[in-house]
Amino acid sequence: MPDLPAVSAALKSQRIETPSWAYGNSGTRFKVFTQPGVPRSPEEKLDDAARVHEHTGVAPVVALHIPWDRVADYAALASYARDRGVRLGTINANVFQDDDYKLGSVTHAEPAVRRKALDHLLECVDIMDATGSRDLKLWFADGTNYPGQDDIRTRQDRLAEALSAVYQRLGEDQRLLLEYKLFEPAFYATDVPDWGTAYAHCLKLGPQAQVVVDTGHHAPGTNIEFIVAMLLREGKLGGFDFNSRFYADDDLMAGAADPFQLFRLMYEVVRGGGLGPQTAFMLDQCHNIEPKIPAIIRSVMNVQEATAKALLVDGPALAEAQTSGDVLGANAVLMDAYNTDVRPLLASVREELGIDPDPVAAYHRSGWAAKITAERADGQQAGWGA
Amino acid sequence: MPDLPAVSAALKSQRIETPSWAYGNSGTRFKVFTQPGVPRSPEEKLDDAARVHEHTGVAPVVALHIPWDRVADYAALASYARDRGVRLGTINANVFQDDDYKLGSVTHAEPAVRRKALDHLLECVDIMDATGSRDLKLWFADGTNYPGQDDIRTRQDRLAEALSAVYQRLGEDQRLLLEYKLFEPAFYATDVPDWGTAYAHCLKLGPQAQVVVDTGHHAPGTNIEFIVAMLLREGKLGGFDFNSRFYADDDLMAGAADPFQLFRLMYEVVRGGGLGPQTAFMLDQCHNIEPKIPAIIRSVMNVQEATAKALLVDGPALAEAQTSGDVLGANAVLMDAYNTDVRPLLASVREELGIDPDPVAAYHRSGWAAKITAERADGQQAGWGA
Amino acid sequence: MPDLPAVSAALKSQRIETPSWAYGNSGTRFKVFTQPGVPRSPEEKLDDAARVHEHTGVAPVVALHIPWDRVADYAALASYARDRGVRLGTINANVFQDDDYKLGSVTHAEPAVRRKALDHLLECVDIMDATGSRDLKLWFADGTNYPGQDDIRTRQDRLAEALSAVYQRLGEDQRLLLEYKLFEPAFYATDVPDWGTAYAHCLKLGPQAQVVVDTGHHAPGTNIEFIVAMLLREGKLGGFDFNSRFYADDDLMAGAADPFQLFRLMYEVVRGGGLGPQTAFMLDQCHNIEPKIPAIIRSVMNVQEATAKALLVDGPALAEAQTSGDVLGANAVLMDAYNTDVRPLLASVREELGIDPDPVAAYHRSGWAAKITAERADGQQAGWGA
Amino acid sequence: MPDLPAVSAALKSQRIETPSWAYGNSGTRFKVFTQPGVPRSPEEKLDDAARVHEHTGVAPVVALHIPWDRVADYAALASYARDRGVRLGTINANVFQDDDYKLGSVTHAEPAVRRKALDHLLECVDIMDATGSRDLKLWFADGTNYPGQDDIRTRQDRLAEALSAVYQRLGEDQRLLLEYKLFEPAFYATDVPDWGTAYAHCLKLGPQAQVVVDTGHHAPGTNIEFIVAMLLREGKLGGFDFNSRFYADDDLMAGAADPFQLFRLMYEVVRGGGLGPQTAFMLDQCHNIEPKIPAIIRSVMNVQEATAKALLVDGPALAEAQTSGDVLGANAVLMDAYNTDVRPLLASVREELGIDPDPVAAYHRSGWAAKITAERADGQQAGWGA
Repeated sequence: MPDLPAVSAALKSQRIETPSWAYGNSGTRFKVFTQPGVPRSPEEKLDDAARVHEHTGVAPVVALHIPWDRVADYAALASYARDRGVRLGTINANVFQDDDYKLGSVTHAEPAVRRKALDHLLECVDIMDATGSRDLKLWFADGTNYPGQDDIRTRQDRLAEALSAVYQRLGEDQRLLLEYKLFEPAFYATDVPDWGTAYAHCLKLGPQAQVVVDTGHHAPGTNIEFIVAMLLREGKLGGFDFNSRFYADDDLMAGAADPFQLFRLMYEVVRGGGLGPQTAFMLDQCHNIEPKIPAIIRSVMNVQEATAKALLVDGPALAEAQTSGDVLGANAVLMDAYNTDVRPLLASVREELGIDPDPVAAYHRSGWAAKITAERADGQQAGWGA
Repeated sequence: MPDLPAVSAALKSQRIETPSWAYGNSGTRFKVFTQPGVPRSPEEKLDDAARVHEHTGVAPVVALHIPWDRVADYAALASYARDRGVRLGTINANVFQDDDYKLGSVTHAEPAVRRKALDHLLECVDIMDATGSRDLKLWFADGTNYPGQDDIRTRQDRLAEALSAVYQRLGEDQRLLLEYKLFEPAFYATDVPDWGTAYAHCLKLGPQAQVVVDTGHHAPGTNIEFIVAMLLREGKLGGFDFNSRFYADDDLMAGAADPFQLFRLMYEVVRGGGLGPQTAFMLDQCHNIEPKIPAIIRSVMNVQEATAKALLVDGPALAEAQTSGDVLGANAVLMDAYNTDVRPLLASVREELGIDPDPVAAYHRSGWAAKITAERADGQQAGWGA
Repeated sequence: MPDLPAVSAALKSQRIETPSWAYGNSGTRFKVFTQPGVPRSPEEKLDDAARVHEHTGVAPVVALHIPWDRVADYAALASYARDRGVRLGTINANVFQDDDYKLGSVTHAEPAVRRKALDHLLECVDIMDATGSRDLKLWFADGTNYPGQDDIRTRQDRLAEALSAVYQRLGEDQRLLLEYKLFEPAFYATDVPDWGTAYAHCLKLGPQAQVVVDTGHHAPGTNIEFIVAMLLREGKLGGFDFNSRFYADDDLMAGAADPFQLFRLMYEVVRGGGLGPQTAFMLDQCHNIEPKIPAIIRSVMNVQEATAKALLVDGPALAEAQTSGDVLGANAVLMDAYNTDVRPLLASVREELGIDPDPVAAYHRSGWAAKITAERADGQQAGWGA
Repeated sequence: MPDLPAVSAALKSQRIETPSWAYGNSGTRFKVFTQPGVPRSPEEKLDDAARVHEHTGVAPVVALHIPWDRVADYAALASYARDRGVRLGTINANVFQDDDYKLGSVTHAEPAVRRKALDHLLECVDIMDATGSRDLKLWFADGTNYPGQDDIRTRQDRLAEALSAVYQRLGEDQRLLLEYKLFEPAFYATDVPDWGTAYAHCLKLGPQAQVVVDTGHHAPGTNIEFIVAMLLREGKLGGFDFNSRFYADDDLMAGAADPFQLFRLMYEVVRGGGLGPQTAFMLDQCHNIEPKIPAIIRSVMNVQEATAKALLVDGPALAEAQTSGDVLGANAVLMDAYNTDVRPLLASVREELGIDPDPVAAYHRSGWAAKITAERADGQQAGWGA
């Protein structure tokens, strides 16, 4: 039987990083519906993120997106975060919104564009130095829309060159996290479309280069937990971008579309020894129609519930069933953990952390939503700037 | 053997409708890259559409999107079009960009929102009366992002009510074309997700309600030509929104991703007697990174080439192979047409139409791109307004 | 709050039909792995099915597959079943294994083959008369592997003709259930590939023709619960073939791949008033590598658990959240039911039924597996005969 | 402009390997339809393969499948082949049909089963020594059907151990080709599901380990030509298993489902310098309903046509358009080659090879089908033995 105190301890020490941009407006190509109370600055995003941490107790880290979160003084921003009980986390580079990047950034045919993109990536490492961030997350929108548009292989050469330059610039405690994505915004060939491509590049770069798994970035039918197990086995799992999907990169709340998949994935994390701080557990979501802060709280809770169930799997019983070829028995051990209602366990974990056992209710009672709606009525709400 | 004069005649009489919005800016949720020379008004879109018709000879109809193409005087706009050798076609309603539509339009839980959406649809019929348009195309972004968000079945009831009200309003020569789409922007349940749903509603509405097939709106693996054959058999194929895709609703140029599929689809159109004017052959595409006018010209040409190949299928030989169970022989008859290089045939069709046999080259020589780049340097370019 | 006695009553009265063929051997095109103790006759399949009912209390009906379950005296077979506490259910026709059906059965180009297939279907209605079965389930493997191989539309005409003949033959208490499937064994165009096609045919046939939803027969990303809601709204949901899948028609145990999907689907059944006997809740699975009887017991339990959760949804709370546009609140009501551990509830339901609360454990204790392994060591095991 | 003599020379020197098992019976899990004249022995398969080579001129190599093609004297079989103008090629191991392999072969939990599987793989290298084959192709059906059934990561360890043992056994001119497949027959987690996994293993094994791309083994939407380009860049493309698909691993004739994809793939081969003998161009198909020999001839021709079109791409024009960011121009260069009717070019290539320009017609005229139908009327036809 699982060691419940150890499970509780693991749940209490879990850290889930929330993305600054999820507090801002987002939408689809058809429409961005704005919401009342949305932050107008990086500082206000941190204010909201601090509420998520206050109510969940496990979300003390906030990822930034440059240039959406560009400020004059990053040390001051880090200090602002600390004052609110959170800290700055992963720096996300953005080389997909400048007009020059229409046909690519680091893989663009023109050297000047590649240089510009690389400069931005290097600037992000400068920012990491200032914020004390460990991880640089690189997602490239680079790719092509039409067969023949550009040379697939040459673009890999250009990509490798840029990644190498960034890698050389890293401090010894910093990491480069390379994210892959099947498609969107590129609709024919994406330059880093799958874990194999990200893995091949990271392998050549060295131990500080790691792969990020965004749970919404795969082809239909892909077994994501298999990829997690593979990357852990290879020592190349840098972290996650959690969200959920029914169709494409829908960016719904983690655990909303397929909670069983999230559980299986967290099981492989636990089994592969990946639950520690070397794995960055990040959310990357878009709350297009639902209120953002409670949606993020719910997402954090969903990751917690999946983690709790994964920790509850009876390892010895599972191993015994597996090695004896008992297909139904082994499956039943896993399902027994999944079918457990872990909400009481997490309520008690929260009580031990000194927070309300019902984070969503506590948030709604807090008056924060009314407060920010009133205080942030004017000005320009944050968004993707697309 | 196919009757070449009849094939040529069919190709000369083919009509492909281009969408006003394809001349404007478009993009993804990540970025809309603007392009020089993009129209700033419905009139300028018609100017560009007239060039496409001038160079292809088969694109004299232009679809409008309301409110993107809202003008004070639609009769004047129709006259403007006629003066440039084109005419106004299908009216596309838009009930997905008003802030009230965040949770739906005609399927929204609130009666007031539904009423507002219905009023817009009825306004579109008024516009049709003014423009002389035959078809009202209805695509609803309505749907839900999360299980439980709203009641799937009740939304169908609300949808049926709105469709019925619109149908009652139609003039006797007008049609309601109902479009379906698997997902986006709704990411859990779309209210009209597939042809079965559109068909079920159109059947109840009556003969003036017809289904539109957008080639990018299906689940992976869907056999679209089967749907075409079914709808033709049921007398319910109202038209097409052509575009192409590798992944989701990529909205690439028609024929760019899978020209063989476009050919198979056109073959079913020809075989099912659907090549006449009762079927609206429309493009619905986004030229996010490529110049728009030549991309539309190329798309029109791709539809023509697929049509030409479909017309070249040796019907008697195919029927004989099919009825004798000759799998390879029947397939070979179809492939023989597909593998034919029909570009010389289309060049001669164009010469008979009195236009340049190479539309793209003729466009590039025309100086139009330089002219609009210079003349449209100022002002607000047209786009989706998302 | 849900009315627990009513929930229990509903769960006690639920009826899940198990398929005779799931007790026999099955496999993939690569290999059929046989298992010890597999039945060698329809009677032995009924013996096994009776054990499933004995341990679950809700599986008293057994579907037959003709010719796999062909016997000389169907009335005697029905009597045999009754003596063991079960009864014969849906008759499944098989027109895909005769050499004549290589290119189709009722849609074949040759009239003689079509006639042969139709005769088999009519024979199945004769069998229904003898067994007292209500439902004839028709799944057609018919389709084509190559574009052009046969005429898509003409095959629909042939299909309609055969369906009409069968429909005319039905007794007034009998039904024709038409099943659709995206692909396999046809790899280009399947003649009944989607619910829209099945619906269109059933609509023309009349009220005794209904659609069957096999949960493994859709394209990736298809929202199956939407289809369920649509068919219930149209009065055309005849029943289910439950199984689960990660990729194609994997035919894994119901609820094994995506238990949340099964819950959503059962929620739509409950919400749409489809939980009664007019809906045939059938399993259609292949236990290729796991022991068959406990796998079927587990599948029945999985359907029960999904049903229990669906019944526990707080309807008024859900409706209130939905009508007020509370996206997160509405989703939370649904998830609250899903996250409930219903195993204690089902244990008490079983105790009220007078059976062991743990059906799998009770089966393992029963000694049945050892008994059939010993008694059925000789002879020809039942299978698909492929 | 392309150098036509060089194109012709490349087409004349192309070598396409046909699989012995494609000459035998195959089918789906629903039914294997036998065909008249199917070979009853490895020798008769070679007789048929020799006809394919005689009519195409580019298919002199025949892949074997062990144990389906097990003979007492492989040297004699090689001699038999040579006497008919062909030679033995890749040895395909089969560790998925023995009853012991129900839960896996080299990844099975039991050491004795793993040992048995490894012994078979080593036996295949012995056979390679006897036949003079260069390549050992390894496709593993290994995987699991249910979450938890076995440990994903431990199975990788077992796989690595077996691969290493085989690799050590290779002669210096022999290669291990590792094939990946998304799913089937495993329906939850396949042990080598994607190119990333195959690549990771081959990288550790060494330069004689290479990846095989089966064009039917990917998730929907996967850009296969990207994988080809990546593997060529990494020096890890060992070869292809050509076939085509609309849905899953349909194993239709190469080029039948998406000829444009086959062209794009061959373009990346040409562009990446992969057209030489270091790449094994193999067919791996199932002719379930069509006559096998003409289907294989057609498949060879389809690969040739795709190759011809790829060779006709105007490289300098393409590069110029690509480097200048001319999206439509670059795409047009590629499409110009694709839209070319290369059948006359291939007819002349065949005439230069001294064979009939129409291989299918020549085969039909040859009388071979009638001859084998008559001569092979008795005995046990070859098949998969599933």
